[in-house]
Amino acid sequence: MIDLNADLGESFGIYQLGNDELLIPFITSANVACGFHAGDSNVMYHTVKLCKENRVRVGAHPGYMGLQGFGRRKIQLTIDEMVNSVLYQVGALKGICTFLSVPLTHVKPHGALYTDLARDFKASKALAIALHKLDPNIILYGLSGSEMQVAAERIGIQFYAEVFSDRGYDSSGHLVKRSLEGAFVTSVDEAVNRMIHLIKTGTIESVDGQIITLKADTVCLHGDGVHALELAKRLNNALIEKNI
Amino acid sequence: MIDLNADLGESFGIYQLGNDELLIPFITSANVACGFHAGDSNVMYHTVKLCKENRVRVGAHPGYMGLQGFGRRKIQLTIDEMVNSVLYQVGALKGICTFLSVPLTHVKPHGALYTDLARDFKASKALAIALHKLDPNIILYGLSGSEMQVAAERIGIQFYAEVFSDRGYDSSGHLVKRSLEGAFVTSVDEAVNRMIHLIKTGTIESVDGQIITLKADTVCLHGDGVHALELAKRLNNALIEKNI
Amino acid sequence: MIDLNADLGESFGIYQLGNDELLIPFITSANVACGFHAGDSNVMYHTVKLCKENRVRVGAHPGYMGLQGFGRRKIQLTIDEMVNSVLYQVGALKGICTFLSVPLTHVKPHGALYTDLARDFKASKALAIALHKLDPNIILYGLSGSEMQVAAERIGIQFYAEVFSDRGYDSSGHLVKRSLEGAFVTSVDEAVNRMIHLIKTGTIESVDGQIITLKADTVCLHGDGVHALELAKRLNNALIEKNI
Amino acid sequence: MIDLNADLGESFGIYQLGNDELLIPFITSANVACGFHAGDSNVMYHTVKLCKENRVRVGAHPGYMGLQGFGRRKIQLTIDEMVNSVLYQVGALKGICTFLSVPLTHVKPHGALYTDLARDFKASKALAIALHKLDPNIILYGLSGSEMQVAAERIGIQFYAEVFSDRGYDSSGHLVKRSLEGAFVTSVDEAVNRMIHLIKTGTIESVDGQIITLKADTVCLHGDGVHALELAKRLNNALIEKNI
Repeated sequence: MIDLNADLGESFGIYQLGNDELLIPFITSANVACGFHAGDSNVMYHTVKLCKENRVRVGAHPGYMGLQGFGRRKIQLTIDEMVNSVLYQVGALKGICTFLSVPLTHVKPHGALYTDLARDFKASKALAIALHKLDPNIILYGLSGSEMQVAAERIGIQFYAEVFSDRGYDSSGHLVKRSLEGAFVTSVDEAVNRMIHLIKTGTIESVDGQIITLKADTVCLHGDGVHALELAKRLNNALIEKNI
Repeated sequence: MIDLNADLGESFGIYQLGNDELLIPFITSANVACGFHAGDSNVMYHTVKLCKENRVRVGAHPGYMGLQGFGRRKIQLTIDEMVNSVLYQVGALKGICTFLSVPLTHVKPHGALYTDLARDFKASKALAIALHKLDPNIILYGLSGSEMQVAAERIGIQFYAEVFSDRGYDSSGHLVKRSLEGAFVTSVDEAVNRMIHLIKTGTIESVDGQIITLKADTVCLHGDGVHALELAKRLNNALIEKNI
Repeated sequence: MIDLNADLGESFGIYQLGNDELLIPFITSANVACGFHAGDSNVMYHTVKLCKENRVRVGAHPGYMGLQGFGRRKIQLTIDEMVNSVLYQVGALKGICTFLSVPLTHVKPHGALYTDLARDFKASKALAIALHKLDPNIILYGLSGSEMQVAAERIGIQFYAEVFSDRGYDSSGHLVKRSLEGAFVTSVDEAVNRMIHLIKTGTIESVDGQIITLKADTVCLHGDGVHALELAKRLNNALIEKNI
Repeated sequence: MIDLNADLGESFGIYQLGNDELLIPFITSANVACGFHAGDSNVMYHTVKLCKENRVRVGAHPGYMGLQGFGRRKIQLTIDEMVNSVLYQVGALKGICTFLSVPLTHVKPHGALYTDLARDFKASKALAIALHKLDPNIILYGLSGSEMQVAAERIGIQFYAEVFSDRGYDSSGHLVKRSLEGAFVTSVDEAVNRMIHLIKTGTIESVDGQIITLKADTVCLHGDGVHALELAKRLNNALIEKNI
C-alpha cells in the first residue's frame, strides 16, 4: 500500500484556499497548515474534523512564518529557532487533534522550509531528534533521497519518502527545477502511469531517459486546479484497481 | 501548602519584559505566555527550561491575539473560536514542554480573556470541557469565586482559585475596580499579612470592613517593579516560616 | 451626479478575494484596504493601478487590525490609538498613490470601525480633525445620518453620506439589523428602483412603510456574489439612462 | 556641518526599547521605525512629537517585515515587492508627520534591508526612483561607498553617505565584518577622534593601516548601552567645539 498525501487547511479567516472537500476522498493522509504560513485555529479545527469524518490520517504541515509569502519565502533562522517554531506549530495542531480524539500521525514541512531541510543534514537531524522526542511514533515526511531522509534514518525516526507524480526527475534523482524543460508532467495519463510503474518497480525514468531508483512511500497530490483533482481521482482509482 | 504563581515568558523577539530570573526563586508555578499576546517559540523554550531548572511547575497562559495590545484588549470571538484559539496556544506550549520532558500542569487565561471568562459561565464551561478533554489532569486557574470556578466544578476539571495579595476585595468577594479607592494594597507588610491570614482562616477583610470568605488555592505574584519582587520574596519567606 | 463606491483590494498574499476587475467598470470610487484587516502593499499597488486605468477615484479603507477577523471584530482602542492607526493606514496608501501619480480623494472606515464611528460623535470628531489636517480636500465617507456625518459637518471636512441599495431602513433612518426581517432587499429590480427614487426625491420608504428623508451622496456596492455584480451593473446603467 | 543620526521609535505596544529621550539631545536626525520590524502607529506618533519638540529632523526607517526578527532576517522579496513595502512604510510615517506638521526629510533602510541594498545596485536604483517620485526633496541615507550611493547619484536623488564611528573599515572602504578582529572601535576617545579626523580630512585609517577616502555626510549613533550614549554626547560636543 502506498500513501497519498495532500496539503489541506490552507484557508485563513474569511480567505478560502484549496478544494479540501473535493480532494479528501482521494487521499489517505492530510498535511494540515498550522497558522504560520496558512491556516488558523478555526480552520485547523474544521480540517481535522473533516479528516476524521473521512478517515484520513492527520499530519502537521509547519512552515516559515509569514502569511503574506505563504511560507514560500525563506526566513533565516538558526537551527534552534527553526526547531522551536516547528515544535510550536506541531504542538498547536496536536492540541486540536487531542480535543477531537484524532491521532497526529506525521509531520511534513512546508514550502521553503521543506526545500531548505531537503538540502540541510544538520537542520534535518535536529528536527528529527526533536520530533522523535515529541512523539516516538510520529512519521517525518520529506523529499525522497534528500538530506531529510538521511537524517531520519540516522536518528531512527520513521520516514516517508515523498515523490511527485507531476514532476520530472533528473538522473541523480532530484526534481528538475521548475524553470527547466521537463519539470512538469502535464499529461494526467502519463503521471498516473509513471506512479504505478514507480510503485511496482521502485524505478522511474529521468528526463534524460535513464532508469533511476527512487524510494516512494507517499505521493504528493495537489488540490488546486482541475487537472490536480482529476489526477488525484485517477491515481487513486488506478491504485485501487491494481490492489496497491 | 499554597501555590504561588506568576506570569513568565512575556518577552518577544529582542523585546525584554519582566524579571523572570529574579522572580522564579519565589514562585511554585509559572504561567507561560503562548505567543498570542506575548512570548514566542524561542522565549517559550527558554522559559520552560528556566522553570525546569528551578523545579517550578509550568502552565500555559493563553490570551487574546494581539501583541500590540498585550492581550488586554477584548477581542470579540465566538465561544468556539475562543476555545480553538486556547487549544492552539496550550498545545503549542505542550509541544515545547514535551520536547523538554516537562509536564504541563495548568492553564491560566491572560488579561482580557481572564476577565471575560470570570464573568461568563457558558464560555468558561466550554473551555473547561475542552481542556479536560485535552488532558484530564490539567488544572484550570481562575479568579476565586468567579464563573470559571463554578464552571470548573460543574465539569469536574481541577480548579485553583486565585487570589491577589496586592488587591482590595469588596464585600461580595469581587476585586475592587482599579479606578476605585481601595483597589490596591500598597504596603508590602499589609499584603503579606493579609495573605497569611487568608490562607490560615479562609477569610479576608473587604474594603468596607466586612469579613468575607474567599477560596485561595494560589496567589498571583507580579514580576514588574521593585515592590513586586519584594512582595514575592517576603510572602514566600513568610509562608516557609509558617510552614504553609 | 451620485457616486457609486465599492471596497476593492481585499486580497492578501496568495489569497484572492472579491471580483475587482469585474466590478470596477460600474463604480466611480474605490475604497482600498490598507493592510490592517485586508490587503497588503502589493495588493494596494495593483489596486491603485487598476483604479487609475479605469479612471476610478481612489480612497483609503482603514480598519481595525486583525486579518483573521477581517476587521469585523471590534478592537478596544482609545480615540488617540484609533486616530493614529487610521493616519498610519491612510498615509501608507497615500504613499503608494503618490508613487503612481494618483490622488487620494477620500477615506471610508471599514467594518466594525465604520459601525463604531457611526455611533460615536467624539471619536468621529477626532478622526475628522485628523484627516482634515492630513489633507484639507479629503472627503470622509460614512453612514448617512450618523454621528460621523454630524462630526464631519461640525469640523468642516467634506462628507459623503453613504446609503445601501440592498439594505432596509427603519423609520428613524437607521439600517435594519442584519438579523431582523426587512434587513435585506433581495430583488435587484427593487434595489435599483429604490435607489433611483432616493436619488431623485431624497426620500426612501422604511420597512414599516414610512417615507423618510435620507441624504445620499454615495451608494455602496458589493463585489461578492452574482447578485452583487448584477446589481452594480443595473444600477450603473439606470443612473446613466436617467442622466444622474 | 555634519549630520548625526540615530534609530528611534523602536518600542512596540508595551515593549520598551532604546533610550530615545536620553539620546535625542545629541542627534540632528532621527530614523523612525515604521511598524514592520519595530514601532507601531502610537510609538510613531510619540516619536515624531518628541523629534518636533527637540527640533530633530524626522526620517523613515523602513525594514523587512517581521517583529520577531527585528528586521535583521533577510526576507526574499522581488524588487517590486520591496519597493511597495517601503512606499507603504514611508507613507505611513508621512501620514503621521503631516498630522503633526513635521516634514519627513529622509529615508534610511533598516537592518537586513540596509545591508542587502548596500550590495544591490538594481534594487537600490528601483528604490531611489520610487522615493524620488514620492518626494523629490527626500534624502536617501545609506552606507558610504555602497551600491545605494551609486544608484542614488545615478537617479539624482539626494544621498547622505553614512559612516559608523564605532566600526572598523577595511582598505576597500567596507565595514569589517562583525565577527572579525577590528570590527569595533571600543574606545570612546578613539571613536570620537576618528570621526573628527574623517570629517575634517575626508579620510580614515583602515584596520590594516591604510589611509582611505570615505564620503561622510552623516554619522550613525546608537542608543543602547552606556557607551553608546557617552559616545553620542562626546561626539556631539566635540563637533560643536570644532564648529563643525
